[in-house]
Amino acid sequence: MANSDNTAAVLHAANDLRMESISVPEPKDTEVLISMGSVGICGSDIKYWALGKCGKFVVKEPMVLGHEASGVVVGVGSKVTHLKEGDRVAIEPGIPCRSCNLCKKGRYNLCPGVEFCATPPIDGNLCRLYKHPADFCFKLPDHVSLDEGAMLEPLSVAVYSCKRAEIDLGSTVLVCGAGPIGLLAMMVAKNAGATNIMITDIDEHRLNFAKKMGADHIFKIVDKDGDVVARKVSSILGEPDVTLDCSGVDSSFILGIQVTRPGGKVVRVGGGSPKVELPLTRLNTNEVDLLGIFRYANCYPIALDLIASGALNVKPLISHHFTLLETEKAFLTASDRNSQSIKVIIHCDR
Amino acid sequence: MANSDNTAAVLHAANDLRMESISVPEPKDTEVLISMGSVGICGSDIKYWALGKCGKFVVKEPMVLGHEASGVVVGVGSKVTHLKEGDRVAIEPGIPCRSCNLCKKGRYNLCPGVEFCATPPIDGNLCRLYKHPADFCFKLPDHVSLDEGAMLEPLSVAVYSCKRAEIDLGSTVLVCGAGPIGLLAMMVAKNAGATNIMITDIDEHRLNFAKKMGADHIFKIVDKDGDVVARKVSSILGEPDVTLDCSGVDSSFILGIQVTRPGGKVVRVGGGSPKVELPLTRLNTNEVDLLGIFRYANCYPIALDLIASGALNVKPLISHHFTLLETEKAFLTASDRNSQSIKVIIHCDR
Amino acid sequence: MANSDNTAAVLHAANDLRMESISVPEPKDTEVLISMGSVGICGSDIKYWALGKCGKFVVKEPMVLGHEASGVVVGVGSKVTHLKEGDRVAIEPGIPCRSCNLCKKGRYNLCPGVEFCATPPIDGNLCRLYKHPADFCFKLPDHVSLDEGAMLEPLSVAVYSCKRAEIDLGSTVLVCGAGPIGLLAMMVAKNAGATNIMITDIDEHRLNFAKKMGADHIFKIVDKDGDVVARKVSSILGEPDVTLDCSGVDSSFILGIQVTRPGGKVVRVGGGSPKVELPLTRLNTNEVDLLGIFRYANCYPIALDLIASGALNVKPLISHHFTLLETEKAFLTASDRNSQSIKVIIHCDR
Amino acid sequence: MANSDNTAAVLHAANDLRMESISVPEPKDTEVLISMGSVGICGSDIKYWALGKCGKFVVKEPMVLGHEASGVVVGVGSKVTHLKEGDRVAIEPGIPCRSCNLCKKGRYNLCPGVEFCATPPIDGNLCRLYKHPADFCFKLPDHVSLDEGAMLEPLSVAVYSCKRAEIDLGSTVLVCGAGPIGLLAMMVAKNAGATNIMITDIDEHRLNFAKKMGADHIFKIVDKDGDVVARKVSSILGEPDVTLDCSGVDSSFILGIQVTRPGGKVVRVGGGSPKVELPLTRLNTNEVDLLGIFRYANCYPIALDLIASGALNVKPLISHHFTLLETEKAFLTASDRNSQSIKVIIHCDR
Repeated sequence: MANSDNTAAVLHAANDLRMESISVPEPKDTEVLISMGSVGICGSDIKYWALGKCGKFVVKEPMVLGHEASGVVVGVGSKVTHLKEGDRVAIEPGIPCRSCNLCKKGRYNLCPGVEFCATPPIDGNLCRLYKHPADFCFKLPDHVSLDEGAMLEPLSVAVYSCKRAEIDLGSTVLVCGAGPIGLLAMMVAKNAGATNIMITDIDEHRLNFAKKMGADHIFKIVDKDGDVVARKVSSILGEPDVTLDCSGVDSSFILGIQVTRPGGKVVRVGGGSPKVELPLTRLNTNEVDLLGIFRYANCYPIALDLIASGALNVKPLISHHFTLLETEKAFLTASDRNSQSIKVIIHCDR
Repeated sequence: MANSDNTAAVLHAANDLRMESISVPEPKDTEVLISMGSVGICGSDIKYWALGKCGKFVVKEPMVLGHEASGVVVGVGSKVTHLKEGDRVAIEPGIPCRSCNLCKKGRYNLCPGVEFCATPPIDGNLCRLYKHPADFCFKLPDHVSLDEGAMLEPLSVAVYSCKRAEIDLGSTVLVCGAGPIGLLAMMVAKNAGATNIMITDIDEHRLNFAKKMGADHIFKIVDKDGDVVARKVSSILGEPDVTLDCSGVDSSFILGIQVTRPGGKVVRVGGGSPKVELPLTRLNTNEVDLLGIFRYANCYPIALDLIASGALNVKPLISHHFTLLETEKAFLTASDRNSQSIKVIIHCDR
Repeated sequence: MANSDNTAAVLHAANDLRMESISVPEPKDTEVLISMGSVGICGSDIKYWALGKCGKFVVKEPMVLGHEASGVVVGVGSKVTHLKEGDRVAIEPGIPCRSCNLCKKGRYNLCPGVEFCATPPIDGNLCRLYKHPADFCFKLPDHVSLDEGAMLEPLSVAVYSCKRAEIDLGSTVLVCGAGPIGLLAMMVAKNAGATNIMITDIDEHRLNFAKKMGADHIFKIVDKDGDVVARKVSSILGEPDVTLDCSGVDSSFILGIQVTRPGGKVVRVGGGSPKVELPLTRLNTNEVDLLGIFRYANCYPIALDLIASGALNVKPLISHHFTLLETEKAFLTASDRNSQSIKVIIHCDR
Repeated sequence: MANSDNTAAVLHAANDLRMESISVPEPKDTEVLISMGSVGICGSDIKYWALGKCGKFVVKEPMVLGHEASGVVVGVGSKVTHLKEGDRVAIEPGIPCRSCNLCKKGRYNLCPGVEFCATPPIDGNLCRLYKHPADFCFKLPDHVSLDEGAMLEPLSVAVYSCKRAEIDLGSTVLVCGAGPIGLLAMMVAKNAGATNIMITDIDEHRLNFAKKMGADHIFKIVDKDGDVVARKVSSILGEPDVTLDCSGVDSSFILGIQVTRPGGKVVRVGGGSPKVELPLTRLNTNEVDLLGIFRYANCYPIALDLIASGALNVKPLISHHFTLLETEKAFLTASDRNSQSIKVIIHCDR
């Protein structure tokens, strides 16, 4: 069926990443075997690699990294009908149980039994050969590249954030953080009808890039005093309907609470500290809702439509390319602020 | 048209409540003049009386207290068509501007120009004669008493809370706090289809009353350790879909964040501290949404339907009665824990 | 594991129902084997039996009837964790594919690959032994009977109808048709907060029963002229927020369009003619939405909560009981207007 | 304050349009006096002019035509704070009562007491001087022209249609009819995230124009057989999530019912016959919802944002220009298919 070499990027512990050969998986009836193509590096991958953990998840046994991925189908289970060998696919990395209440209600990202690539103890797909349920593989049209296929993952986070925030025609949006998720969120918000978007960061290079990608306003955060920042943001942007905090920095989430309009929403996309002191008066007097995001559900098809239709171009975000054997170098680049990397892609087919 | 005596309960400053004669108001075209009937005492009235302020609102000039009110129409503006002299009405106390974006969208409780009875500097209606826009006066059917009419105000808070929380058929609900709002929220939740409701408090008398009013579970909070409380609550109730914090106590809001199910909502009904350290991990990993409540919009008709249809009986909550001239005594009773009062009513027609 | 006798009610063609022995099914890993208990007769069962078809579905090969069912677990697949032998369960009869877009979004009732008991060519469960996916079997608490378990199926239709219609606190509802679905819809609407409900029928016996079950108004349809009916209904009920047409009669659906308030909803629960001439002016001038219902999704747990909590009592609707071998007699009774049957239950364990 | 000449286009009866001088209105406290600028001709204006009626509304007394309008503020009521003389404004033509339940809930377009320009017996604003409530006048930024201001009216219909239809990121949309409303709906749908849009018409010129304005697919309806049309549309477009019928032709609404995906929505934007025979099977088996549109609520600010931000360009739709005194000629042009007009603007300031 396929090559028997299956080199993989296996994380044994913090700072102990090894290129090893793992066994070639056997796809079940409803699965496909995939010759891996492009895999993007995500902030969580970097945390596992650097710290051995991310949030509450800890690497206890060797684990293959990688979950922003695409590839080419090289084996097809007997019950799979919508894919065939040679199809290029994007891989939605979370496999829910399909039978709990949350799965049945369509909120499968919250399924307590979900198995998500490269979230311990589940292996990711930074390797040569990988199997996956066929219905979580999305066929790419000919004009969509494997790199774009890999970008569907962070783009799905952005789509889900905008949907949860109910960003709509004419929305004013504050996006905090101009990393890959913030940039994509800004672009998706525009596609959802937002007509007035500000993006913030502490990094001028990122802000300039954001401007080029379509931000109406960019705002560099320099003041330490949150009230000053809030006043400045408000004076330029007006009252946002929605704040999407994609920074993972608590002060940005608090900024959202301070500036968002009565009846608006503040969405914590990027996480942050486990405990945060929040100003809650506006929660009541202004009914500013606070929402969190955990991955996404039902967003891959949308993300693919946005790319395939040309509505949104993710290619400019891909800043660096590496081969599978250069994985460690790729991680060093992705984690080095001076590299000015945005999205680093590892090509498992090179 | 009406008696010219207009005795009112005027608050001059903290602890300086005076029974004074004020001028008789002249209703405009679209207003009615009301001979006041029953007025309930709310926690905010007590705060103004005891502290001279409530949240960000401060009593700077003499202000008539009272906003949970009903009465009898004794004068009718020339353009009023749905009310006539002699009609008994409940009075929705907030008058929005009707022309800002929030008013036009139906979220008039968030109108920045809203004038709300007994929120400084707007006078309330603890007096003999009071005028009000006719469309914010709701005619009571013959079998609904003026006391029940006054109860529409806190009941509207409960209705709005349940609506914002999307409490629905089969919901499991945790209500924190068994004061009037918590009790009413519990009763409304049941009417909205909730089949499993726990109510918490530190006061055993209130909990026993809640049990009598229909709570499926009562829970007395004694442990200081929030994690212990969370574990105990969960072991009895299971995972609530919604937590309504009606206690105004920060630890209850935090409890809601800890125990509410993935995809559920925690609603801060009763306010609390301006700044609170919150555990936010579940905001992301479990998508537990945090919402606040500011008064209500479009709830008086629903609250009236619930009472008039017999679906919900508020009468048992009315524990004490006073005449208008006994206002100070009424406030003393309402603020005295030992009185075991639930809702204290002042009869302006006595 | 279980008895090898598996007598089943097999429909070969219109009016050709035979009691036959079929093979005993083998449950898979994720399935349970069930010793069937109570099975209710639905209108669709009667159509298959009398006409050999129901809507677009035609009986082409012998098919076991029955889909409103409960039973006792007698065999458990190796991966099933939440059920054990001896558990009494209600059986949700539709098994979706779990992998199409509609399944993933939580609208699994619309899954094009759904397999639904006793919808050709899928066998039902009017038999002794039947297997089913464990996650579509809901364990009944000790105080909930197998008969009530069987009633969860039509009750789920009622729950789903009320949810789609967004029936809420204080809703005014017109229910057309006082058959089992109409009666249950009325009861569920009340549980969802409706405070003013009228139910219509042409049968006085059914209306009297509806009154006893809690309808605020009953209305016997005698006039041929729809405009006259509409005027009379409106004069008694006022403008309903929602009309649930559970009659399957086109004139009732049209009545809903005529009387429902601006911004309200008319829901076609019971089907009707394939083509109907509708008055559509109010669709535009009053924004009365027209919705249809196809079975239900995510409603069994809610229906069970409603029964188990005592919020809703379905027992009075069960009018007749038969043994499995009396199946034909049961169908004759259920289809005979003179029997005044409401819900006929066949006991497969007798 | 302003010129005393107030020439107006007054319709006396079908085909009896007269240019007459009417009195100059006096703005109230909360109103502004407007020197009229651009007024677009709508299909309803043409119906009143040609037939003396539109739907259920009949011209019984002389009435000024025009409701798609903009102008310059020349007088300001004493309580108006957000506008001053010289401000250029778009005029939202419907003035609701602001005090009924529907107004309070934010659905003011359904207000039974709404007064809408050029809907009998309310005068429109095809005249020199006109007064209007200030909060229904929206200040145009300097770079937005009076012509664009007039276009906010049909654009608001398009915005409202897309919002009611819940068009969202990745939506597939079928728009029936490539008149001004259909074209604008298509453009707004794209702004709301739709990635796959087909527009239909019988007129090739309009379709070519639609293609130029961004339609992904255009489809000329030639077949008489609706089933054939449905098959062809589906084979090109796939299953739309939403059909917006902007044609006013019953067969298009029926087409929507036939092709829209399970769980999708068919929206009747443009009206049609009062009674229509509809295929309703898919209403049930596929839960295709049928919705109607009546004008719009809360859409002017959004429409203005879309134009002012440059997200959407309405200028190419404006095909013809006339002076106020040429009003009849303007109507002849707008109603003449051969003129290939799309939107005809009358300049009241010329």
